[in-house]
Amino acid sequence: MTYKKIKGGVCAPKGFLGGAVSCGIKNLKDPRTDLALVYSERPCVSAGTFTTNRVKAAPVKVTQAHMRAEELRAIVANSGNANACTGVRGIEDARTMAKTVAKELGIKQREVGVCSTGVIGLPLPMDRIAPQLSELPSHLDSKGSAAVAKAIMTSDTTMKQVAITTEIDGRKIRIGACAKGAGMICPSMATMLCFVTTDANVSKVCLQKNVLEAVETSFNRICIDGDMSTNDTVLVLANGAAGGKTIARGSKACRQLRDALQHVLLKLAKACVKDGERITKFVTLQVRGARTYLDAKKVAEAIAQSALVKSSWNGNDPNWGRIIHAIGYSRARIREEFIDISYEGKLACEGGLMAKTPVKTLRDIAAKDQFTITIDLHQGKADYALYTSDISPEYIDFNRSEYAYWKNAGLG
Amino acid sequence: MTYKKIKGGVCAPKGFLGGAVSCGIKNLKDPRTDLALVYSERPCVSAGTFTTNRVKAAPVKVTQAHMRAEELRAIVANSGNANACTGVRGIEDARTMAKTVAKELGIKQREVGVCSTGVIGLPLPMDRIAPQLSELPSHLDSKGSAAVAKAIMTSDTTMKQVAITTEIDGRKIRIGACAKGAGMICPSMATMLCFVTTDANVSKVCLQKNVLEAVETSFNRICIDGDMSTNDTVLVLANGAAGGKTIARGSKACRQLRDALQHVLLKLAKACVKDGERITKFVTLQVRGARTYLDAKKVAEAIAQSALVKSSWNGNDPNWGRIIHAIGYSRARIREEFIDISYEGKLACEGGLMAKTPVKTLRDIAAKDQFTITIDLHQGKADYALYTSDISPEYIDFNRSEYAYWKNAGLG
Repeated sequence: MTYKKIKGGVCAPKGFLGGAVSCGIKNLKDPRTDLALVYSERPCVSAGTFTTNRVKAAPVKVTQAHMRAEELRAIVANSGNANACTGVRGIEDARTMAKTVAKELGIKQREVGVCSTGVIGLPLPMDRIAPQLSELPSHLDSKGSAAVAKAIMTSDTTMKQVAITTEIDGRKIRIGACAKGAGMICPSMATMLCFVTTDANVSKVCLQKNVLEAVETSFNRICIDGDMSTNDTVLVLANGAAGGKTIARGSKACRQLRDALQHVLLKLAKACVKDGERITKFVTLQVRGARTYLDAKKVAEAIAQSALVKSSWNGNDPNWGRIIHAIGYSRARIREEFIDISYEGKLACEGGLMAKTPVKTLRDIAAKDQFTITIDLHQGKADYALYTSDISPEYIDFNRSEYAYWKNAGLG
Repeated sequence: MTYKKIKGGVCAPKGFLGGAVSCGIKNLKDPRTDLALVYSERPCVSAGTFTTNRVKAAPVKVTQAHMRAEELRAIVANSGNANACTGVRGIEDARTMAKTVAKELGIKQREVGVCSTGVIGLPLPMDRIAPQLSELPSHLDSKGSAAVAKAIMTSDTTMKQVAITTEIDGRKIRIGACAKGAGMICPSMATMLCFVTTDANVSKVCLQKNVLEAVETSFNRICIDGDMSTNDTVLVLANGAAGGKTIARGSKACRQLRDALQHVLLKLAKACVKDGERITKFVTLQVRGARTYLDAKKVAEAIAQSALVKSSWNGNDPNWGRIIHAIGYSRARIREEFIDISYEGKLACEGGLMAKTPVKTLRDIAAKDQFTITIDLHQGKADYALYTSDISPEYIDFNRSEYAYWKNAGLG
């Protein structure tokens, strides 16, 4: 399969529009946009994955309920407030967001997905949002990709969008997507919103299966700080505008669409890590030779979540001792004497002991912005890849206080 | 039960001696002591708990083997090098430490416990240690408590020792102990060494049971950075010098001894948190109303290990949103609408929603050096307490690199 990168993001596939406005959700004086809308001119089939956190934000609950009843064809999203831990009022606010937009668009309330990202625990300032909600649809534009991608940013420093075109069953299809990341990023979904659009003509079941599989090998493979958010959502809308035969589950075309989706999501997932809060390094962990997939996963996640390992990466220190100690407490079945650890193919630890590679060679690799650490457990055939980052003193500093936000909400 | 604090540490109980020397293990120019010995003039019964990390340091393996064969009556310990991931040579070095000391003391090799703490992955510099090992017993002194407590320190900033006296079965007994902590501190044992001595006349089975129970509610209840070390060891020697009837398992006296042990260990465990690497706050997490003990524990540990929660404590931010999000991903059975979170009894979150306590009141509490956060899940009767700390930018900075150490070992 070849994927050709094309311009734009969620509006790149045929028949999708996007737009955004500014409500001053976080701060009335902030001119940045914080309310976005994605809309398909045609009906869609839709699929999604959501946070596995047992504390779910109101928009997650509302969107899940909508998707059980109808296919989504629009997504309304705000940044600056997560609408989480806001009780009955939070549910009502999320519903109001869907209802107002649906009325203007002339579609059903349940055809609108709702997403929020930002601070937990404060009700949405609906007095600021409501007047903009009815305005929002008038900003829809086929060139609105960047407007959407920008409006959902929180502590992100760059907007994240990607669009590709590829050929499936002899027909050209397009996939566009945008995402936001930055903090609270951990496997099993993150503080992360991702909207994907495609004009492929695909069956509901094929799309659902594909989304689960593509998320498992992209967004579920990244870890910045090990914190799992209450709002994580990936939503995929497919409107069939590319025409052709419906892509059915189990077909070669369905697998090709999955691979294309995975390609797009992995690009965005990696972009989320690279834009992680105050990170300085992008580290790929490649675990090999585990007894089972789950063992490989445990090893990768224990390493990626160790504060000591992440601190050593920040210091350009190829500290394999801290890596092996994290492997030891991962609860995976391992034997110390069989463990090899290498940096970009250079052995740092061989059979559980210091290898012969000069420390200088390893230090040069650990000083790079990006490197791969391979852990071979020599216990079996299972492997797992995880994309992660260091942790910096600046991360802690950045996350010390959200007080400015509360003060702005008049609660100081 | 009343416990009277007395002077000293491991040498406070009758018949125990301690001493330390300097080998320059970490750095030849460093004049600090780094090799310690504890010895009982009389035979002992002994018990211990060890790291559950699957990567175990050589001295842990050697001490466990010794304890299966004999009762310990001496402990030799070094700081500056963990003797972990050092293969067959590491085992030989640990055995040499026991053997040399045993020979000088005229006891069996297997009556000596061996402990190491420090950097992982480098063999012990036996050329520096060996000459001092045979010297070491000549430094034994009944006033050697502080010498032992100081020699096992690594990144600790203060020595940690405690001694008490109490009355059991109408007879005065003494318990003394010292510990080292600082980094890699996590529930299920830490990078932590703790030596306990008592002159109580106690049966082996009573002592073993008591140690397990006392560790479970002290050292297993602390968390600094969530990293579990390869070397954690608690060793308890009881020499019966206080005389009287042997304290048997199941007796009231046995439970009283357990409570006294728990009192001593909890003091040291809390001291380890307070001296955690570059921490600024001591936080007690009190989880209540969980369905099961395990659920309560999961909630406490998820909170204590969240980088975002720990960062907010560093910033004096009473950020209950981050706490509830960690509760949500803890995998404990919870219902968001039932969760209460309070700071020193002041509700920050009630029924999953922001409570009415003014933010200023909560901020004043979060600005203190020490405070208690109570989480009531309202799901059942189980509870769990955990002692933890914030994470600071300085922690990351401090742990960025162990390169100086490697360089010193001629491997830079």
